[in-house]
Amino acid sequence: MTKIHILDTTLRDGAQSEGISYSIADKLRIAQALDELGVDYIEAGNPTANPKDIEFFERLSKVKLKNAKLAAFGSTCRKNSQPDTDAAVQAIIRANTPVAVIFGKSWDLHVADVLRTTRAHNLGMIGSTIAYLKAKGKEVVYDAEHYFDGYKNNCEYALSTILAAARSGADCIVLCETNGGAFPSEVAEITAKSRKHLAENGFPAIEFGIHCHNDSGCAVANTIAAVEAGATHVQGTLLGFGERCGNAALSTLVPSLELKMGFECLPKGYIKALTDICVRVADISDVKLKKQLPYVGKSAFAHKAGMHADGVIKNSHSFEHIEPSAVGNRRRFLISEMTGRSAVLEKLESVFPGLSRESPELSLILEKVKEMESYGYSFENATASFVMLAKKIMGMYTSTFELVNYTVIAESSANDPYNRAVIKIRINGVDDIFAADGTGPLNSLDCALRKALTKYYPVVDSIRLINYKVRVLENDKSTSSKILVLIDSTDGEETWTTVGVSGSVITASWIALVDSLEYKIMAISSASAISSASA
Amino acid sequence: MTKIHILDTTLRDGAQSEGISYSIADKLRIAQALDELGVDYIEAGNPTANPKDIEFFERLSKVKLKNAKLAAFGSTCRKNSQPDTDAAVQAIIRANTPVAVIFGKSWDLHVADVLRTTRAHNLGMIGSTIAYLKAKGKEVVYDAEHYFDGYKNNCEYALSTILAAARSGADCIVLCETNGGAFPSEVAEITAKSRKHLAENGFPAIEFGIHCHNDSGCAVANTIAAVEAGATHVQGTLLGFGERCGNAALSTLVPSLELKMGFECLPKGYIKALTDICVRVADISDVKLKKQLPYVGKSAFAHKAGMHADGVIKNSHSFEHIEPSAVGNRRRFLISEMTGRSAVLEKLESVFPGLSRESPELSLILEKVKEMESYGYSFENATASFVMLAKKIMGMYTSTFELVNYTVIAESSANDPYNRAVIKIRINGVDDIFAADGTGPLNSLDCALRKALTKYYPVVDSIRLINYKVRVLENDKSTSSKILVLIDSTDGEETWTTVGVSGSVITASWIALVDSLEYKIMAISSASAISSASA
Repeated sequence: MTKIHILDTTLRDGAQSEGISYSIADKLRIAQALDELGVDYIEAGNPTANPKDIEFFERLSKVKLKNAKLAAFGSTCRKNSQPDTDAAVQAIIRANTPVAVIFGKSWDLHVADVLRTTRAHNLGMIGSTIAYLKAKGKEVVYDAEHYFDGYKNNCEYALSTILAAARSGADCIVLCETNGGAFPSEVAEITAKSRKHLAENGFPAIEFGIHCHNDSGCAVANTIAAVEAGATHVQGTLLGFGERCGNAALSTLVPSLELKMGFECLPKGYIKALTDICVRVADISDVKLKKQLPYVGKSAFAHKAGMHADGVIKNSHSFEHIEPSAVGNRRRFLISEMTGRSAVLEKLESVFPGLSRESPELSLILEKVKEMESYGYSFENATASFVMLAKKIMGMYTSTFELVNYTVIAESSANDPYNRAVIKIRINGVDDIFAADGTGPLNSLDCALRKALTKYYPVVDSIRLINYKVRVLENDKSTSSKILVLIDSTDGEETWTTVGVSGSVITASWIALVDSLEYKIMAISSASAISSASA
Repeated sequence: MTKIHILDTTLRDGAQSEGISYSIADKLRIAQALDELGVDYIEAGNPTANPKDIEFFERLSKVKLKNAKLAAFGSTCRKNSQPDTDAAVQAIIRANTPVAVIFGKSWDLHVADVLRTTRAHNLGMIGSTIAYLKAKGKEVVYDAEHYFDGYKNNCEYALSTILAAARSGADCIVLCETNGGAFPSEVAEITAKSRKHLAENGFPAIEFGIHCHNDSGCAVANTIAAVEAGATHVQGTLLGFGERCGNAALSTLVPSLELKMGFECLPKGYIKALTDICVRVADISDVKLKKQLPYVGKSAFAHKAGMHADGVIKNSHSFEHIEPSAVGNRRRFLISEMTGRSAVLEKLESVFPGLSRESPELSLILEKVKEMESYGYSFENATASFVMLAKKIMGMYTSTFELVNYTVIAESSANDPYNRAVIKIRINGVDDIFAADGTGPLNSLDCALRKALTKYYPVVDSIRLINYKVRVLENDKSTSSKILVLIDSTDGEETWTTVGVSGSVITASWIALVDSLEYKIMAISSASAISSASA
C-alpha cells in the first residue's frame, strides 16, 4: 500500500484565514490534536512573518509528539543576501525544527514584478538556500509557489526552478497551486510532465507533493488529480482554513485517499478519530465546524427528505457513500416540515415505546413542529426540546414549577454596575423568591433559576450548560429581530440540546433554559417512578 | 461559443439542506433572484413530496420570468401504477410547468432494495413516464439517479436505463452523482463512455447533463470533468445547498465555465451581478454567505498575510486568479495582528490624509488592534469601529455625550410584561434622562439612546440599523461567555459596521451602538467644520 505523507499547515496557512486568530496556547493545543490524528508533518508557523512564532516554537519543542515532525516555513533568502546571513533563513534555523519548508518563485511574472530580480538570480536563491539548510542537517521540503500558473505562462522556466531545487538536495518538490484557479485535468497533466522532466534529468525517484487552494472550488479534486499523477506528499489544512477561499481540506482528503483510493495516510485505525479531532480543532479555532463539510460535518450523513430517510433505513448504501462510523461520524434523521412519519418515529420510539406509525399523536406532533418552525424554531439539533414538545402533546408532561414572574435588571452605573435577576416561582401552591447576580442578563437569569430549582430538585445541581448559542433571525429587522437561542447541557453522562425563540433574547434564553432543566428533572422522576413501580 | 444550460435546484434539492426552511414568500423571492441572474431552468419544487409546493407553483405561474423556464421535479410512476393515474406523475401535471424533471433508478441495488421490483419493470417505468409527459407537451429532463454508482456496479444495466429514457423521447439525459462519492477521473470516463453508448445506439446528438453532490468534496470538479467530457446541461444550487454535504455550487461553476473555460452560461454581461444575487439568496435563506465561497464569498479576494497584500498591491494577478469585479466582488485587505503597515495605511489614508508609512500613530494603532483582538474583538468587518479607534489614538475624537448611567429592565409578568431602558446622559454639563420600551432589552436600549441623541444631533434620526449579529465567544463557558455584537447601520447613502465585545450582551450592544451613532455624528460635524472654515 503506497504511503502518502500528510503535511498540515493549519497553524501557518490556516492562520491566514479571515476570522482566524490563534494565541500561543491555541497553537499548542492544535499541534497536539494534529499529532493525535497522526499526520506526518505539522507546519507550525512562519517565524519571519510572525515574531510571536519564535516563542511558540520554543514552547512547542518541549511538547512530546508521538507521530508528527515539526516544520518551520519560510522563503528562500532575499535577493540581496546570502543564506548564512539572511534574516528569513536564520529565523528558520532559530525555530530549530527537523524540517524546513522553503518556498521559492516558479512564475516569471512574480520574479519580475514582485521579487524584481532576474530569472537566473532567482534560481540561485532557490539553490543556495536549500543547499545551506541541507548542510545544516534539515529535511527540506521545497514549495514551488505559483507552480501551475508559472508552468502555464513559461513551462521551461517553471521546470528549471524545480530542477534547481532537486539539484541542491531538496527531499521533496511540492507543486503549489497558490492562486487556486486551476482545474484537475490541468493539474494532472502538469504534475505528470514535471515528474517526467525531473526523471529525465537524473531524479527518477524524488518525491513530489501538492499544495492546493480553493479559489475555483477544486482544491480537493486538484490534490487527488496530482496523487493520481504520482504525488505522494499532500499539504492542506485539517478544516480547509487558509488565505482567501482556503486550502485543500485534509479532513476530506485523508478519508478519500485511505477509504476509497487504497492509500495509507495515517497510522492504522487512527482515521476513526477524525470527526472528534475536527470538532476539537474547530472549537479551539472558535468557529463552528461547517455542517456540510464532507465526511466530518454534522450534516454529512444527515437525511432530511422523507424518501432519502426511507431509502437509508432499507439499505444505508442507498444514500451514503461510506459508513459514517469509519470516520467517527454518525447518521442522523432530521426533524423538519419535510420529515416523514418514519423519521419522527425513529426519533421518538425509544422515549415512547407505545408509539407506532399509526398513532394519531404522530400527526399532531408533525403539525406542531411545522407551526413552530414557521415561527422561527429549529428542532434539527434540539432533540431535547423536541422530546419535551412531544411529551406535552401526548399528555405526558407535568410542569415542575410555575413561574409567577421574573425581573432582569442591567445597571450600567460606573460606581456599581450589576446584572441581576429576581425570580418568583410557585411549587405545590407555595410561592418562593430567588435572586442572583451574573456576568450579563442571561447569566444572572440562569443563576437565579438554578438556585430556585435546586432547592426542590437536587438533580439540577449536576446539570451544567456547556454551550450557548445566539442566532439573530430575520436579520433585516435590526435590534427588534427574532432571536433563536440554543443551549447544550450535560450532567456528565448525557448531553442534550434545547431551543427557544422570541423577540427578546431574555425570553428566548428562558424558554431554552426551562426546557433543559425540566428535560432532566422529568427523566429522573420517570426513572424513579419506574423503579418505585417495580419495587 | 458552446452554450451550457444551467438548471438551479436551490428550491428543491437546496431546500433539503439541514437548516434551510423556505416559506412560499421566500421561494418566490428566490425564483425572481435566479431569473435575474439569468439561469435557463429553475427547478422549483417536488409537488409530490411537499403538498405546499402546489400552492407555490400556482402563485409562481403569475410571476413573469424574463430568462428562466420553470421545472417541476418528481419520480417516474410507482411500480404498481401507470403514468395517467399515478399520483406523483399527476402532481407534475398539476404543477403546470413547461419542463418536467423526472428521476429514475440506474443502480440495480436500488431497484432491488429500495424499489423492490425487477430490472425490466424499472426500464418500463422510466420509458412509460417519459413518453406520457412528452405526449402532454412537456420538455423532459431525465435525471438518472445514482448513475455513477450504478455504472460502477453494473454498467450494462445503467446504460440500458438511459437508453430507455432516450428512446422514450427525453430531451436531456442527466447523469446524477447522487451519493457524492466519486472523483473527477471516474466522472470523465463514465460520462464519455455513456455518450458513446447512446451515440452508437441512434442518439448521437442527445444532450447530456450532470448533477453532482459534494460528499467527497468534488462536486464542482466532477461537474467540470463531465463538461470536459461533453455534458452541456449543468445542475446545481446557487450557493451549494443540498442534502448532506450539498450540491455543486453554481456560484463557483458559472464563473469557472464562463470566465476560464470559454463557455456561455448566462446572458451576456449578467455575470457581474453574481455576488449581489448570492448575497440576496443567502439573506432570503437566513444564512450567512460562506466567507470562503469561491468567487463570491467575502474572503474570496481578501488578503491577510502581509506578503500577499504587498504582492497584490504590486500586481493583482500575483495572488488573484481573476479580477474580483468580473463577478461583482471586490478586493479587501484585512486588519489583524498579521497586518502590515501597508494594509492599515491603505485602509486609513482616505480618512486621515496626513498619515504616512512613517507616522508613529500607525504603530500605536497596530498595537491596540492586537490587544483588542486578543480580548475577542474582530475589526475585519467593523471598519467604522476601526476608524473610531484610530481617531481616539490620534487625538481626533471628541465625545458627543457622556453616559451617566443606564438601567435595562426585562419584566416577565404575565399581566404586564415589558422591556424598558432608562438612560441618563450629560451633554455640555447638563443631565437629561430618557426612557423607552422595546421588543427586547437590546431594542429598548437602542430606542432610548436614539431618543436621547436625536434631541441634540438631528442626524441620528436618519440612521437605521439594518443588521444585528450576536456571536458567543469562548463557547465552553455557557451563559457567562464573552459576546461579540456586530451592527450594520445606514443613513440611506453609506453603510457602516461597528463592533462591541463584553461578558454582557447588553454592554456589547451598547459599545457597538455608541460607535455607530458617533461615527456618523462626527463625520457630519467634521464636514460642517470644513464647510464653515471655507465659508
